[in-house]
Amino acid sequence: MKLFSATLAIALACCTMGMAQTDSSTIIEDFKPSTLNQPGKEYPQVNSQGYARFKIEAPAADSVRVSLGLGGRGGTKLHKVEDGSWMGTTEGPMDEGFHYYHVDVDGGTFNDPGALNFYGSIRWESGIEIPAHDQDFYALKDVPHGKVEQILFPSESTNTSRRAFVYTPPGYNKDQSKKYPVLYLQHGWGEDETAWSNQGHANLIMDNLIAEGKIEPFMIVMTYGMTNEIKFGGLRSFDITPFQTVLVDELIPYVDANFRTIADRSHRAMAGLSMGGMETKMITLNKPEVFSHYGLLSGGTYSPEDIKDGVEVDLIFLSCGSKERPEAVKSAATALKEAGINAVSYISEGTAHEFQTWRRSLHELAPLLFN
Amino acid sequence: MKLFSATLAIALACCTMGMAQTDSSTIIEDFKPSTLNQPGKEYPQVNSQGYARFKIEAPAADSVRVSLGLGGRGGTKLHKVEDGSWMGTTEGPMDEGFHYYHVDVDGGTFNDPGALNFYGSIRWESGIEIPAHDQDFYALKDVPHGKVEQILFPSESTNTSRRAFVYTPPGYNKDQSKKYPVLYLQHGWGEDETAWSNQGHANLIMDNLIAEGKIEPFMIVMTYGMTNEIKFGGLRSFDITPFQTVLVDELIPYVDANFRTIADRSHRAMAGLSMGGMETKMITLNKPEVFSHYGLLSGGTYSPEDIKDGVEVDLIFLSCGSKERPEAVKSAATALKEAGINAVSYISEGTAHEFQTWRRSLHELAPLLFN
Repeated sequence: MKLFSATLAIALACCTMGMAQTDSSTIIEDFKPSTLNQPGKEYPQVNSQGYARFKIEAPAADSVRVSLGLGGRGGTKLHKVEDGSWMGTTEGPMDEGFHYYHVDVDGGTFNDPGALNFYGSIRWESGIEIPAHDQDFYALKDVPHGKVEQILFPSESTNTSRRAFVYTPPGYNKDQSKKYPVLYLQHGWGEDETAWSNQGHANLIMDNLIAEGKIEPFMIVMTYGMTNEIKFGGLRSFDITPFQTVLVDELIPYVDANFRTIADRSHRAMAGLSMGGMETKMITLNKPEVFSHYGLLSGGTYSPEDIKDGVEVDLIFLSCGSKERPEAVKSAATALKEAGINAVSYISEGTAHEFQTWRRSLHELAPLLFN
Repeated sequence: MKLFSATLAIALACCTMGMAQTDSSTIIEDFKPSTLNQPGKEYPQVNSQGYARFKIEAPAADSVRVSLGLGGRGGTKLHKVEDGSWMGTTEGPMDEGFHYYHVDVDGGTFNDPGALNFYGSIRWESGIEIPAHDQDFYALKDVPHGKVEQILFPSESTNTSRRAFVYTPPGYNKDQSKKYPVLYLQHGWGEDETAWSNQGHANLIMDNLIAEGKIEPFMIVMTYGMTNEIKFGGLRSFDITPFQTVLVDELIPYVDANFRTIADRSHRAMAGLSMGGMETKMITLNKPEVFSHYGLLSGGTYSPEDIKDGVEVDLIFLSCGSKERPEAVKSAATALKEAGINAVSYISEGTAHEFQTWRRSLHELAPLLFN
């Protein structure tokens, strides 16, 4: 149970709001609407330093706060302005990338009507994007695009049809003789199978890597990993069996039967972020005959003793943000390498337990897979 | 311009909240969470009569209202209850099926934190489902399921990659020699390309019809139809050219090149709901060489004079809810039939300008296509 607890400690450390450190004391007034706003909405806005500014209409409210802001200080308090709406700016610049947030109106939890919604914290949260210096790798470009397909696969163990999203690379429908390796990629606690496409831009990351010739095309399959009952604290009593059954006994055979996959261990990888990393670790260790490449993204580490005798692991990829526990990730990779296992660690500079870390991690992981 | 205005009048009549008529004066206390609630959320609830009950946490608010309720009376006013939250029940039963709504908290417009969000009214709105007596035809069943694929297609005219969703029927990936007809299916004003799958269950309607042997499989393609600037009143200056260019010159060639379609006029249909009907009418009349089957769902009518000499239309399908203008739809179909055109009208009983009308309309339209 030791490895389980250590993984949990990292997986649960997801409550810090990422604030970037900066020396700037004046706020530059070049605020623009966040790229994740609903069509036509002016707020929330972001400036070139990474400050976020909010404007919420609630003329008769007594108190409006936004959860985004300095950790431990209750987010950002908005103040009433002349037109009757509420406005406020974060106390400091936010970390680059995607952040979840919500709005407290007179004690109730709502979303920002100006922002798009993203599933996280077992609710649809508002999302805001702080433009990152390296945003090019997940930008929508004029390159051939793969597809993200919604499939409904039969699940006898849960007595329903379950949803998954399947990324197929550009050209998948062209050459009908070509078969592809598959990465099974899991979201974090409180998220669902929409997270890697919506928040993570996994499809655009792949399209761009393929267009640049940096990877051989492969497929990605994303499904819902919280097969157990959903509640806060539920991780403490986490039983991997229900999800492992859905993934290994139901989803993988369905994907292999309905897509042109290379349906063997050496062409099958599993990775996950946060809780999805915990699941990846448990399932890859339980089912060494199914996966050959493992990735934990802010989701704990493997130690050499975790790998059973005789099991050949082609790759272990460990990553996290520099604001998480980078030393734990780096030292785990070193220990694995010393034991003769092909391990790679990656630290995302200046980011915390948030999606910019995981976008970058996928971008680093993809070229290492299936070589 | 006369046909344009008449179509507009119907397309714009989308503000009535559908309240079912009933003699019941007592509310039966068998409320259950709406099937469209976020995972684990107890409210909103619906009872067997179709009443909706809301519970919103906002302990320090002065006023909380829900937009759903009797038309013209400002929805449903919630009252504060013992635990500090706000509760209320609609004054009467709601029409069967899907309804958009939002919550007014102290004068601000928010969504219900308990409900899933659906894009309508150019914002992500809360959604609630009043179980319908005929819900079986769009239920998730243990039958073979097709896929809903997200594609990004290049659009030179708008200088970007645009998103569409493509429904491919069960077995599409199995028999690589089989080709399929295609229905291009448009959403209404303020909605987007997610509406027909999320609110409409178009994929489940197709899966079930195919499983019952009631239709030959075909594909459905859904893309964003508001290529023009998005604002209230924008319909008045609606120019079909930008969207027609995207659909006919960019999307259709892309779909024909990347999917196994039967790429000719007689195997290509276009239909749309509300504003999407208006678009369907304009594009099918402008481009008679592209589509052979036309469908307007609460989206106006064709008159015999609209069809140019020498154009053979295989089907005109006209529908609306019985609470809209059913006589206009029926008399238009009669006039078309008298002119020798294969026209079919369908009236959805007890529904208004809402998605239950359009789910039923698709269910009626599908078996008539491509015969």
